[in-house]
Amino acid sequence: SGLVLVKNPHLDLMEEDILYHLDLGTKTHNLPAMFGDIKFVCVGGSPNRMRAFAQFMQRELGLAGAGEDVADICAGSDRYAMYRAGPVLSISHGMGIPSISIMLHELIKLLHHAKCRDVTIIRIGTSGGLGIEAGSVVITDTAVDSSFQPRFEQVVLDDVVVRSTELDKDLAEELLACSRDIADFPTLIGHTMCTYDFYEGQGRLDGALCSFSSEKKLEYLRRAYDAGVRNIEMESTAFAALCGLCGLKGESCRFHLP
Amino acid sequence: SGLVLVKNPHLDLMEEDILYHLDLGTKTHNLPAMFGDIKFVCVGGSPNRMRAFAQFMQRELGLAGAGEDVADICAGSDRYAMYRAGPVLSISHGMGIPSISIMLHELIKLLHHAKCRDVTIIRIGTSGGLGIEAGSVVITDTAVDSSFQPRFEQVVLDDVVVRSTELDKDLAEELLACSRDIADFPTLIGHTMCTYDFYEGQGRLDGALCSFSSEKKLEYLRRAYDAGVRNIEMESTAFAALCGLCGLKGESCRFHLP
Repeated sequence: SGLVLVKNPHLDLMEEDILYHLDLGTKTHNLPAMFGDIKFVCVGGSPNRMRAFAQFMQRELGLAGAGEDVADICAGSDRYAMYRAGPVLSISHGMGIPSISIMLHELIKLLHHAKCRDVTIIRIGTSGGLGIEAGSVVITDTAVDSSFQPRFEQVVLDDVVVRSTELDKDLAEELLACSRDIADFPTLIGHTMCTYDFYEGQGRLDGALCSFSSEKKLEYLRRAYDAGVRNIEMESTAFAALCGLCGLKGESCRFHLP
Repeated sequence: SGLVLVKNPHLDLMEEDILYHLDLGTKTHNLPAMFGDIKFVCVGGSPNRMRAFAQFMQRELGLAGAGEDVADICAGSDRYAMYRAGPVLSISHGMGIPSISIMLHELIKLLHHAKCRDVTIIRIGTSGGLGIEAGSVVITDTAVDSSFQPRFEQVVLDDVVVRSTELDKDLAEELLACSRDIADFPTLIGHTMCTYDFYEGQGRLDGALCSFSSEKKLEYLRRAYDAGVRNIEMESTAFAALCGLCGLKGESCRFHLP
């Protein structure tokens, strides 16, 4: 049917669903009227970048109001920012798995309540590249954890549930094909490693704590490269797991900063 | 000496330390002049609340400029917001352990570079209460994980390092004593449970996914209460572990929303 799958039998029994962190709700907002025609959702860490992206999409799509400021749909909350440009929704998710998880739970319910169909979700942003040219874009085929395994461990109450982290291979190929139409746009498909920490978790030598040598760091990163990892960031396993479970066609494209 | 402990031998060898997510650095800013006299750091999730808190402190301390707007010291970055009111620094940290970890690593290095002495750090904000009166404040003695254990597991490269999550007991008692001077301010000391997820991790029945019954949820929360847990949030174990390792006198006080 192309609808988003919400796997929660309790939801239908609720009189009202409040999407707390988005400052939206089923009683306070007409979600089908506001969002029913959304076909693409782009998500990224920084609110400023996601506003700039919505403005870019407005120009690219030749929409009325292009060049003007765009309104933050979640202005009543400072947890996330949300903008729309025609059929494209642009939302920030902050940094790390817990932060993107809260946003995705509420976004998926939003798409469900709005009866959206055939939605594609793309994670955009920056990441640390591994053995690749600076300025490259990595399209993720599979998100892996810090042991290079394609899995996301979610604690549900006190049980650990292991979830798959594969992304949509056809969408990855489609995005790769797009990149070929643009000159000087080095793009590749590879595994993306997701960590819970930016400093100690990613082998950075400049945190407040650092108990490893640069040799040990290089040895770890070499093993990651050999396992197929081409970039490192902090949200991809949760993103892949939640998209997969809820039937959302999802991809992650990250730019490796020069 | 009262100085913050930075346990990273690599830092001294660096020509410049860039605190990326705070938009500050040792070459671009005179950190001792800007922050050397800071004695208290208050941190919380929401940037708007941390601005409001800085304005509140300005009024309470009778500082010049009270009632006027305060400037965001990290205005060049939209990852965190930082304000100061006299000797008090007020910083946002977003939601979840990865997000607060990045901020704390950079804050601890900031306090180190600025040669601050005898700094107290207090985590303020809201949380879900467990078997306590709505509107109560919980002062954390020990942060615990989803198995009610006083530990924080940090992945360092691919090793799992287990860290202690005890907070400063004297500071907890001092804060409790303060609360007694204010009428209608129910306050207690208890354990705080820290989760990686807001919906499935905390037993909420209104996420995009929910595989448990309300009975199973109640049984889990009852066990948490019996283990001494009085509130649930998403940052306390990482906060306690990092403060403890770096010699920062730290506490967490959370308001249980009515």
